[in-house]
Amino acid sequence: MNILIVYAHPEPKSLNGALKDLAVRHLAGQGHEVRVSDLYAMGWKAVADGGDFLSRDSGERLSYARASKGAFADGSQSPDIAAEQEKLLWANAVLFQFPMWWFSMPAILKGWIERVYAFGFAYGVGVHEGERWGDRYGEGTLTGRRAMLSVTIGGRAPHYSDRGVNGALDDILFPIQHGVLFYPGMEVLPPFTTYQADRLKAEQWPSVEEAFKARLDGLFTDAPLPFRKQNGGHYDTQQVLKPCLGHDASGTRIHLVKPGEPEQLPVGVKIFETEEL
Amino acid sequence: MNILIVYAHPEPKSLNGALKDLAVRHLAGQGHEVRVSDLYAMGWKAVADGGDFLSRDSGERLSYARASKGAFADGSQSPDIAAEQEKLLWANAVLFQFPMWWFSMPAILKGWIERVYAFGFAYGVGVHEGERWGDRYGEGTLTGRRAMLSVTIGGRAPHYSDRGVNGALDDILFPIQHGVLFYPGMEVLPPFTTYQADRLKAEQWPSVEEAFKARLDGLFTDAPLPFRKQNGGHYDTQQVLKPCLGHDASGTRIHLVKPGEPEQLPVGVKIFETEEL
Repeated sequence: MNILIVYAHPEPKSLNGALKDLAVRHLAGQGHEVRVSDLYAMGWKAVADGGDFLSRDSGERLSYARASKGAFADGSQSPDIAAEQEKLLWANAVLFQFPMWWFSMPAILKGWIERVYAFGFAYGVGVHEGERWGDRYGEGTLTGRRAMLSVTIGGRAPHYSDRGVNGALDDILFPIQHGVLFYPGMEVLPPFTTYQADRLKAEQWPSVEEAFKARLDGLFTDAPLPFRKQNGGHYDTQQVLKPCLGHDASGTRIHLVKPGEPEQLPVGVKIFETEEL
Repeated sequence: MNILIVYAHPEPKSLNGALKDLAVRHLAGQGHEVRVSDLYAMGWKAVADGGDFLSRDSGERLSYARASKGAFADGSQSPDIAAEQEKLLWANAVLFQFPMWWFSMPAILKGWIERVYAFGFAYGVGVHEGERWGDRYGEGTLTGRRAMLSVTIGGRAPHYSDRGVNGALDDILFPIQHGVLFYPGMEVLPPFTTYQADRLKAEQWPSVEEAFKARLDGLFTDAPLPFRKQNGGHYDTQQVLKPCLGHDASGTRIHLVKPGEPEQLPVGVKIFETEEL
């Protein structure tokens, strides 16, 4: 299979660098084709601006989305953007290796998303009319691909537990896992996390290594997070979860299909009229 | 009062630009001192790397946090970083004006946080020993300041409602409002949001303008989000919310003090021994 690793850390000798190297070695050793986008080493341009569109009149008022739509359609995107899109289309799975900084991805990786996720590529895909809001959340250009975050975290695991002071990890990662990865159609595996990353001792590395290898081995077989598909009939015409669903869950978790629920419900049909059951 | 506006949009003639200009005009008209960090216009360096530390040996392995700690302590931070820290210390309130891109802030603003929020300035502040995990979440360098997000959003409000397909807005903003603003001590006001930002018509502007002015007028008087303070006795020694609290809320909302709850509970005392009541 083809695997793209998107890696964002300034120091090759870091834990993140070691995890990236391990992933390359292990996946290649299993016979996969591996490509790496090493954003710091590439000097990736992090800032989305008018320079991303080659045939744009620089005196014109910039709507980034509109300019992105035009440039994606007519092939006038900056070549670094097109190259990353090509890698995503090539990949069967995408692994993101980064440190959690201020409860999100590093700016250089956020800028990769903003620039590579063009209008017509990652959003604005499919029919938008009437009750249909395009192909997103489980459908879209990147359908059929798997994605996994491998995140190093400075803090301790209890601080990220369901009732931990930082917020639950799955809540913190929801904007990325649901909003960035699931949105254009990728299946998202549970994250691989390394806590207290700055304090990892040499003797702890073998257990991290084994745990990471086990997750890499499951890249194409482990069960993805069961996010509800937008067009799976779970949401009403306003894109609000139907009243019959999600009542025993909370917060972001209402967007996960429960065991026993059908993945597909009749589209456009309100199953219960009242908001509360 | 002193108000810092941190503004991140590439196009001055955008809705974001108009909201920023309105805020400057309105707040100055009320007699406040206003300064603006216009990140695109400043050519703000978005990427955190070794270049942020003037006296660092470039051959040395980079730990960004460790280098940040040293450079903040001995005054060898990049001058652009120190200048923004000085603005934050000067301010009584900080307004962030930006478009929501991929369910978070633009990369250029994320990079502002990563670089300006130095070790010793925004984290690693206060005593860390025994049961005390430093001054954070309601305490820290920026205590006494107010913060508010003004966010433009391409999608429609129902998609961001409590059961909307994108996730609830307060869940999506939790990593920023709780993890970035409340963490170093700022009081966080509810966000000002403008939905369907790309479709706003000229005749809709006056109502947006009035609503924004009303929020600006309340910058120092509106009630902030009642996030629980880390050292307010609500969390146990593992920084996990005590079993007696947060049981009628869900997800990120368990970190909000409920009406009637005391803001301060005895620190270090477990009120209930069982996890479930």
